[in-house]
Amino acid sequence: MNTSDFEAWARQQLSDVEQALEAWVPPSAPAGLGDAMRYGVLDGGKRLRPLLVMAACQAVGGNTGAALRAAVAAELIHAYSLVHDDMPCMDNDVLRRGKPTVHVKYGQAQAMLAGDAMQALAFEVLTPEDGASVPPVLQARLCALLARAAGHAGMAGGQAIDLASIGQALDEAALRDMHRRKTGALLQASVQMGAACGGCTDMAWRALGDYGAAIGLAFQVVDDILDVTQASETLGKTAGKDQHHNKPTYVSLLGLTAARRHAEELRQQAQTALAGSGLGAAAGVLAVLADKVVEREN
Amino acid sequence: MNTSDFEAWARQQLSDVEQALEAWVPPSAPAGLGDAMRYGVLDGGKRLRPLLVMAACQAVGGNTGAALRAAVAAELIHAYSLVHDDMPCMDNDVLRRGKPTVHVKYGQAQAMLAGDAMQALAFEVLTPEDGASVPPVLQARLCALLARAAGHAGMAGGQAIDLASIGQALDEAALRDMHRRKTGALLQASVQMGAACGGCTDMAWRALGDYGAAIGLAFQVVDDILDVTQASETLGKTAGKDQHHNKPTYVSLLGLTAARRHAEELRQQAQTALAGSGLGAAAGVLAVLADKVVEREN
Repeated sequence: MNTSDFEAWARQQLSDVEQALEAWVPPSAPAGLGDAMRYGVLDGGKRLRPLLVMAACQAVGGNTGAALRAAVAAELIHAYSLVHDDMPCMDNDVLRRGKPTVHVKYGQAQAMLAGDAMQALAFEVLTPEDGASVPPVLQARLCALLARAAGHAGMAGGQAIDLASIGQALDEAALRDMHRRKTGALLQASVQMGAACGGCTDMAWRALGDYGAAIGLAFQVVDDILDVTQASETLGKTAGKDQHHNKPTYVSLLGLTAARRHAEELRQQAQTALAGSGLGAAAGVLAVLADKVVEREN
Repeated sequence: MNTSDFEAWARQQLSDVEQALEAWVPPSAPAGLGDAMRYGVLDGGKRLRPLLVMAACQAVGGNTGAALRAAVAAELIHAYSLVHDDMPCMDNDVLRRGKPTVHVKYGQAQAMLAGDAMQALAFEVLTPEDGASVPPVLQARLCALLARAAGHAGMAGGQAIDLASIGQALDEAALRDMHRRKTGALLQASVQMGAACGGCTDMAWRALGDYGAAIGLAFQVVDDILDVTQASETLGKTAGKDQHHNKPTYVSLLGLTAARRHAEELRQQAQTALAGSGLGAAAGVLAVLADKVVEREN
């Protein structure tokens, strides 16, 4: 797939995702809660997880209406984790996507509640009551994938390791385990949710799982690199904070050159997995997304 | 149903629920997260929501294996809300179920993560991968009910109103709206999840919904009463904190006598709903539970 085809595809998906977020994250939620939720998720972010869901769905010729719900749900989980992660008791960060963080703008209590409500909303979005747009069996499958990626075995578990690892020297296996959970699990689940929206051979399912695992880890390796090589203005969040918080990263463990090489290896792993998926050209968007994950500058 | 039959029934259900919580809340979760999650939910609490799920399931002759999962999921949502609610940025409470609160014991960051992971775990528990113990269509229905009760339209929304209402004079309609969301929604959803585990006439479904709404509100009215009439030792949490935090309550709005009368009216509403459910003696446990909610002393 060439760049301009990809750009056109991504523009359309992002437009659909923004519209869905706009419609489904309720301004009507009481006592300012809706404002805080919307502030935390609308109008910002790369929307990588939604793009992965939609690309994987397209690769297997799946139900795009269901995939759009999965895309929004994945983004809600990601966004809630940032809201909580930025709070004073965690990373105590004041800048996110170039704007004051949710707790700075709405207070800590509202930020915590907004995050909590965003997690619940993810599962609301996956379980529409009509049952027509997303068959109930698929609703259950999507909830299962998302809950496991978000919970103790995935993102929340990774955050706990992250918290405990401040000032510790982790070896590469421990660092990989942390990142696979903290960031990788939800990125991989995004791919899997998209794939679950269509029929998919066992071979393709496994290949897409491997692809998701590789780009999930690559994303974090690149994050570690960007934290030391980019300015806060480019990142839209505070740069240099891993070092500031004395957190183990791929850069602190391997050095910058080896970290870049590792990101490149993971990109290759992702592409190899796609090549063995049997999906052929239908997986073209996923291939471009793997490149984007490694080449991104913020 | 007589008292000793009820006691025997409740003992059996509580034993099943404790065993399931013990098995499903993972000690293996990394970096102390599992310890904090288990501390937040094991070995304490009235388990009212699990009892409501199991009783409603029994009333409709439903799938008790599925109901046990719903019971555990409802309790996880309740327990996570307490963990977050106790944190310094919310109620800043140090005592819960007679023990130090989770953030006092494990720190604020771990408490926030434990709550987050408990919410995700609720949806993991509802979506077992075998699909045999809980048919996928029922998994989806249970996720839909629980997510809506937990989210912005339910519990989290009620908490936001609670937060905004400190020092405010609410009228009875606003107070009722707050409590229906904050406490009532999850109690009602517990009844509905139990009912969803079996076949159920539309008449019974509506009646059980009305029953759940009535006892949900009754629970909170009684909570407001106990906050001013009981000592901390009896409650297992800090007494008098509504007044201390200058929160509007049924007692501050109506006075103690009228609040007690209102709880009694709600009990009658619950019993009337059951009597019109067509479920007959099968709803006997639910009838006793309505009495217990109003007569409880902690």
